[in-house]
Amino acid sequence: MDCRTCHSVNAMKLLGRLLVLQVISTFPFTSTLAQSAVEQWGRFEVTLPHSFSGNSFKAVDLSATFVGHDTSYVVSGFYDGNDTFKIRFMPQQSGRWNYTTASNVSELNEKTGSFECVKATGKNHGMVRVSETYHFRYDDGTQYYPFGTTAYAWTHMNHAVQETTLKALTSSGFNKVRMSVFPHGSVEPELFPFPAREVKRDSSGKENHAWDFERFNPAFFKQLEKRIDDLGKIGIEADLILFHPYDEKRWGFDVLPPEVNNRYVRYVTARLSAFRNIWWSMANEFDYVRTRSREEWDLLSKTVVETDPYGHLCSIHGSTAHYYEYWKPEFTHASIQDEAPVMDFGHATLLRNAYAKPVIYDEVCYEGDLDRRWGRLSGEEMSYFVWMGVLGGTYVTHGESYKPSNDEATLFIRDGGKFRGKSWQRIAFLRKLLEEGPGPLEIADVGRDHRTAIAGKGYYLVYFGKKMKDSWLFNLPVKSGRFAGAKPGTRFKVEIIDTWEMTIETCPVTFEVSRPNDYRLHDKNFNKVRLPLKPYQALRITEIP
Amino acid sequence: MDCRTCHSVNAMKLLGRLLVLQVISTFPFTSTLAQSAVEQWGRFEVTLPHSFSGNSFKAVDLSATFVGHDTSYVVSGFYDGNDTFKIRFMPQQSGRWNYTTASNVSELNEKTGSFECVKATGKNHGMVRVSETYHFRYDDGTQYYPFGTTAYAWTHMNHAVQETTLKALTSSGFNKVRMSVFPHGSVEPELFPFPAREVKRDSSGKENHAWDFERFNPAFFKQLEKRIDDLGKIGIEADLILFHPYDEKRWGFDVLPPEVNNRYVRYVTARLSAFRNIWWSMANEFDYVRTRSREEWDLLSKTVVETDPYGHLCSIHGSTAHYYEYWKPEFTHASIQDEAPVMDFGHATLLRNAYAKPVIYDEVCYEGDLDRRWGRLSGEEMSYFVWMGVLGGTYVTHGESYKPSNDEATLFIRDGGKFRGKSWQRIAFLRKLLEEGPGPLEIADVGRDHRTAIAGKGYYLVYFGKKMKDSWLFNLPVKSGRFAGAKPGTRFKVEIIDTWEMTIETCPVTFEVSRPNDYRLHDKNFNKVRLPLKPYQALRITEIP
Repeated sequence: MDCRTCHSVNAMKLLGRLLVLQVISTFPFTSTLAQSAVEQWGRFEVTLPHSFSGNSFKAVDLSATFVGHDTSYVVSGFYDGNDTFKIRFMPQQSGRWNYTTASNVSELNEKTGSFECVKATGKNHGMVRVSETYHFRYDDGTQYYPFGTTAYAWTHMNHAVQETTLKALTSSGFNKVRMSVFPHGSVEPELFPFPAREVKRDSSGKENHAWDFERFNPAFFKQLEKRIDDLGKIGIEADLILFHPYDEKRWGFDVLPPEVNNRYVRYVTARLSAFRNIWWSMANEFDYVRTRSREEWDLLSKTVVETDPYGHLCSIHGSTAHYYEYWKPEFTHASIQDEAPVMDFGHATLLRNAYAKPVIYDEVCYEGDLDRRWGRLSGEEMSYFVWMGVLGGTYVTHGESYKPSNDEATLFIRDGGKFRGKSWQRIAFLRKLLEEGPGPLEIADVGRDHRTAIAGKGYYLVYFGKKMKDSWLFNLPVKSGRFAGAKPGTRFKVEIIDTWEMTIETCPVTFEVSRPNDYRLHDKNFNKVRLPLKPYQALRITEIP
Repeated sequence: MDCRTCHSVNAMKLLGRLLVLQVISTFPFTSTLAQSAVEQWGRFEVTLPHSFSGNSFKAVDLSATFVGHDTSYVVSGFYDGNDTFKIRFMPQQSGRWNYTTASNVSELNEKTGSFECVKATGKNHGMVRVSETYHFRYDDGTQYYPFGTTAYAWTHMNHAVQETTLKALTSSGFNKVRMSVFPHGSVEPELFPFPAREVKRDSSGKENHAWDFERFNPAFFKQLEKRIDDLGKIGIEADLILFHPYDEKRWGFDVLPPEVNNRYVRYVTARLSAFRNIWWSMANEFDYVRTRSREEWDLLSKTVVETDPYGHLCSIHGSTAHYYEYWKPEFTHASIQDEAPVMDFGHATLLRNAYAKPVIYDEVCYEGDLDRRWGRLSGEEMSYFVWMGVLGGTYVTHGESYKPSNDEATLFIRDGGKFRGKSWQRIAFLRKLLEEGPGPLEIADVGRDHRTAIAGKGYYLVYFGKKMKDSWLFNLPVKSGRFAGAKPGTRFKVEIIDTWEMTIETCPVTFEVSRPNDYRLHDKNFNKVRLPLKPYQALRITEIP
């Protein structure tokens, strides 16, 4: 289904109709109500009050066609409880948009209206999309390097923890967070995505819910949406996990029948597609959801992509070394759990070459002190893993799993809370480095040298990882990825980056490359760079114009 | 097109017809003529003499339907020159087969006959097919571990070199050879796949051919077929490269128009599909054939797969780190050029996980002494690369590129000839090791330990690569791939394998594993294995029943 196809809607006719709609919250990340102008990539919301006698979640079909000056979108609406139906729309271009609704309920059918879409301002860069095969940019062309963290159930925690998490994220360098719609079995949420028909307590006092899977709980989704908007305000993408296997037989959300899963993803996309900072993560550890076939995953993924009118980023994530068929057109990128690709030089790039899509290693174990080996990386190792991925032209997601030390403490990967580790700051430092550079990295000489990445003509990052050296003979590969190589006589400035101490020192020597010598370019005087004989050193080597 | 679908052919009716066909060469790898019984996976050949007034290569359509007791195949015929048309068939099951021809030329149409297919004998195991997702078996269930070498243009050399090559291959451990149909620009062949309309010599004496691309040269293909049968007799699969970019502007076979390429692959599959030891390699370094689009490669690959009735293995090979879309259904396996996946532990498996198909690293640089870095691996490094691939559950192809030292010497990767390197013997040794084991290897604990592979319950290979150790604390991963792990109390025998010296010594100590300790199983007395402090050592660790 291509929702972007132009429809033959007579805009003049639409404009002539009476607008009987309440327009609220048209501008995300602000509290402005009843606004008639919306920013590009902002959110326009149509509210339709109607008292329907049956199950409004299931029996009412509602959509609207939004017509801009040379394009149109068909957008699904949803029932928001309290006799209120809503349709949300994210305009992809500025100018006048007219809409008309369609419904199987006559009172919701053929409602029309319009609004003015104005240019984006401030930090509104639009949605994040795939760019240059392996990387990402915002709609407005701004480069986006994903530096994500993990807080699966943070929106299911109490209000105080949620606020703490937001505060921690605000002062971090992260711009993506992996988080689940469904709660985790080990956390007791206040709100659930489905309403309970009945709640019983067993002899141990444990609650047993009898869920009404024919309906949704709008209060749950409103709270989730508030948090997604909160993330948007601080420049963070919500990598929203639609399914996961961590129910622990508590609520049964991991074993819903296919028709409920189908209604659920349609309800989610109807509510959330108009949020510009949403990514769809079909699952965390999909292969641990034992009851679901690949066919159902495929179908659910297709449903999400077809019901999302804007083409948000979409992937699916498996357990260690269990990759999905990421070449399928539903998936914009590979979201992989595997530590092997970032353990040593030269691994990360291989999967990028295989998929010809961006690769995000969304789980490579976590910094922490758990007994389980997936949760006990040192801060150094977590930072090293992120560097290894980025150097290879891929991306790596952070996670922190220090044991909660007291009743107030949290396990960050699950609950959010405060950061207690050391890698999050180093990752922010790396993000800054990358954003200062001319573009994303790629290995310069992919057959031989997996320590030297290039980000543009005359711009190299060399990373030594755990190897400690007191000096480095200046040399660059002749091969230079998709960029032009350095010509003899080109002069270079070298900065020594301590990726752990987060310092950058300029090397006092200027280097000048001689003619190629067995695939390498050395300094004409074979000058060396003095290094501090410490691990985790890197070099930024830039051409002097 | 599924050629294996049953057709409603009345076998009785066919049998009643007069057989006016000359049946020759029905049994490959023997010189028996006019045989009426053919082995399963052998070759039955129908010869139809007919003098056709037009271009027999282009204007005559010929096929036959072969009907066995519960299946049928539609097989294309071909013009073999000298007023002779042929149809070749490889029976996939024993028993009676009846056939009837179809042609747009009445004299070739509705010819019928039959033959008896008997059980395979001796070294005839059938075709090699994909098995257990990542590996290969012959049709009869015998495991096949690909240990290939490379001699692109060996069939274009003079007779003496061809015979030398066969002799070298016979005494090697190789069971696959990568070889091209089209000649290489740097070699002067006697025969060409197309007939020349005219041959001119330029002022320097260089021959310029004006090719007739409307016809083929049967003599060329007969010679190629003889060599493929010669390989079959010594248990070697012909990984036949259909296109390559090494024409060096000499004959233009790399820039043929799409319609000629299409006729060429159809002629090749008509002639060669009935050879059981054929694999289709659509190209070597496909991306260096600058004039051809991915769409044409896709189309040519589909044509090969659709016109081959038996489903021979098929892949396509790119330049370094340029992978094709190997998940496409035409490709049975990934045939990759890249040294990075075998340079260090833990890389090779990643691509296997990505493609969920067998991965053969068909070019990882070559053992030799060329100046170019792709042709100057030491024998040790070449052997190490092969070990690295095999340990990770993938396969690696050998190549040898020592500079021809005198007029009689050859560049093996191109010309064949004699082996002059050292890795070929080590690869034969590894093949023997693998064939002695219970099955193909896989990494036992894919997240952490990339040195320990498992081939079945209680059967491990540990490889130390370049790391020299004087002892090794006996320990195995608790995780053991898809096999059951060792229980406390299990006793193990350890053999120390010097992969370079090709020796196997039994360690005098018997080891008994204790309960799991942080994901590892140690000997209950923490016994060690003494090692010779040399590189390229491995251990074979087998459970004592």
